[in-house]
Amino acid sequence: MISKQYQSMLSGKSVIRELSEYATARGHEIGYENVFDYSLGNPSVPVPSAYNDRLIELIQTGDPMLVHGYSPSLGIPAVREKIAASLNRRFGMNYKGEDIFMTSGAAGALAHAFRLVTAPGDEILTFAPFFPEYNPYVNLTGARLRVVPASFADFQINFDAFEQMLTESVHAVLVNTPNNPSGAVYSARTLTRLAELLTAKEKQFGHDIWLISDEPYREIVFDGKDIPYVSRFYPRTLSCYSFSKSLSLPGDRIGYVAVNPASGVSKMLATMCGQISRGIGHNCPTALMQLAVADCCGMTADLSVYETNMNLLYDELTRLGFEIVRPGGTFYMFPKALEADAVAFSKKALRYDLILVPGDSFGAPGYFRIAYCVGTDKVKRSLEAFRRFVKAEY
Amino acid sequence: MISKQYQSMLSGKSVIRELSEYATARGHEIGYENVFDYSLGNPSVPVPSAYNDRLIELIQTGDPMLVHGYSPSLGIPAVREKIAASLNRRFGMNYKGEDIFMTSGAAGALAHAFRLVTAPGDEILTFAPFFPEYNPYVNLTGARLRVVPASFADFQINFDAFEQMLTESVHAVLVNTPNNPSGAVYSARTLTRLAELLTAKEKQFGHDIWLISDEPYREIVFDGKDIPYVSRFYPRTLSCYSFSKSLSLPGDRIGYVAVNPASGVSKMLATMCGQISRGIGHNCPTALMQLAVADCCGMTADLSVYETNMNLLYDELTRLGFEIVRPGGTFYMFPKALEADAVAFSKKALRYDLILVPGDSFGAPGYFRIAYCVGTDKVKRSLEAFRRFVKAEY
Repeated sequence: MISKQYQSMLSGKSVIRELSEYATARGHEIGYENVFDYSLGNPSVPVPSAYNDRLIELIQTGDPMLVHGYSPSLGIPAVREKIAASLNRRFGMNYKGEDIFMTSGAAGALAHAFRLVTAPGDEILTFAPFFPEYNPYVNLTGARLRVVPASFADFQINFDAFEQMLTESVHAVLVNTPNNPSGAVYSARTLTRLAELLTAKEKQFGHDIWLISDEPYREIVFDGKDIPYVSRFYPRTLSCYSFSKSLSLPGDRIGYVAVNPASGVSKMLATMCGQISRGIGHNCPTALMQLAVADCCGMTADLSVYETNMNLLYDELTRLGFEIVRPGGTFYMFPKALEADAVAFSKKALRYDLILVPGDSFGAPGYFRIAYCVGTDKVKRSLEAFRRFVKAEY
Repeated sequence: MISKQYQSMLSGKSVIRELSEYATARGHEIGYENVFDYSLGNPSVPVPSAYNDRLIELIQTGDPMLVHGYSPSLGIPAVREKIAASLNRRFGMNYKGEDIFMTSGAAGALAHAFRLVTAPGDEILTFAPFFPEYNPYVNLTGARLRVVPASFADFQINFDAFEQMLTESVHAVLVNTPNNPSGAVYSARTLTRLAELLTAKEKQFGHDIWLISDEPYREIVFDGKDIPYVSRFYPRTLSCYSFSKSLSLPGDRIGYVAVNPASGVSKMLATMCGQISRGIGHNCPTALMQLAVADCCGMTADLSVYETNMNLLYDELTRLGFEIVRPGGTFYMFPKALEADAVAFSKKALRYDLILVPGDSFGAPGYFRIAYCVGTDKVKRSLEAFRRFVKAEY
């Protein structure tokens, strides 16, 4: 019989998608260039030409049995080794190829990570504001996602609330830094305190607590800062990565899970991913994309537009009276709305063709997300719309 | 805590993989060209150059935001429409684009199909001999795979055994024609009788029974015959397809689920696949491969080598006294071993560097699989090894 569970999900609507569809429809009326569409987190810069060149080279001169042939289910060994070497070089880690499991993007990585370290009924904690897709991602595994309230002053971790919710049922904690939707980057101090708390609670409960780190925005950081690499702070860390944002190729569906070797079980966990794959039909990402990213994994697309856009928006919006935690990375920011009801606020913004996503589905009512992965010209033109909006409505 | 379920799976060994590893090791000793490696079902012919040309054209001249950008989670609309049109033209169906859900190969397609029409605890029936990966594919969804004994005379369906096992707990039936490992093609008569039985049992039980048709070998058929298209025989059919074998690109991970519109719920089911994806981390196959196969979906690689190989092996092995149901397609055949214990038989064959997979894991002890997706020259040289093997051992 047709699955009741998935059928019932059809009626659920994504606020982000609805706003994006509205923006497209409005674009047909007034020209899409006149819609300040800040709804979707879709990279807006082209893929590096070196990546395309490598794809073409592989297609033209690679062994077709390698380029179009089955990849081993854990990933192509040489690819796993190159990724391990790149992570070791950049973040001072000690990965071997055997600790890396190749996936179809971060969604594929998370699907394996959740199943690796939780059983149905277990709890996974994450922190507001959070990417709303974590709800179906986790809940459909049979585990249960619970959300720790935000630390609104800085979008670091609200440790008091966290410690209260960190009960014996919790087997994994999910972090996302740099963060969608806030753009916040967890500081070394936050990560140290997080690791200390997890270690203490592991001892108290007598079972492991795994840290699942979703880090597709790792390379989009501002002010020339280095971002602390989460896994360095805690041995039982599963780093879930996607090249979608750093190389600007979300359609290529390529990422990985990297298991910290300090856990002592990294090879076993990476190998277990191959068993999980058999149940969820994942198998492995395309051989061609594996081979191509392996040769581009220290590279990025030209990501500077995101910082330019952030500064333009941050400066003007703070001048207009918005309270904003200044983003340390990503292409998002998460200001406080100018009225308590962010849904009403976002609705009013539509009158000025500003497409802003209310923070309710991110676990932070009263705030809103701006996804500024759009052209800088549009950002500049949107500032006047923000001025008119604020002046007329507040 | 680390998942006990997946950890326990690590100790399970695949006979096929073990034999393949043996073949590789033996190749290092005597030269791989001297190992008659019939273990793996891995396409041995190159991808059509038209496919590679299209990939390069898309990379060089396509809109990078389309070629490397997010695909909608159900697949790119124009791609779904082209595939529907191709199926309609070739098989007289009435698919619309909305009935097609794009997947990363047949494994991805099956993962969605099982979840669409069964709930944990439900039974899915399949028929021996069968692809052993169906066990984890089904059982890890929470449904339960049960295997109907083979009809050894023709590898069609053993209807007496099937009817006995077709109880009220059965919510789906899984067929694979042309079949791995037997190469058998279900006749129109078999499919008609199957459909009649399912229809009668649906009425008796008062619930739907869905037919899941795994058909990656659909285009590898012999003797110039047409293969009956399963979905034409039964309205509640989910056709799970992969381009891996027809276009010889298993590494490209591209396929689809096609839901028969005569079911009356095809658009809903294809759309539900997008919800299932959120839980299993699938999202969608690469945009680039979607775009490329859409323009090659009536095309095949040069598949003639498989028929050449089949005839050489079939003729010589029957002459040597093997009982074989002559394959109608695929690149497999499934002869009866020359002793009751096919494991012992395959072990003896190794002395002659013949790598043959015993049928036990396919649900048919006493038989063995030959995967003749190898060069014809090697097939010819293997015939002498078969002669020596049979003469010396039996």
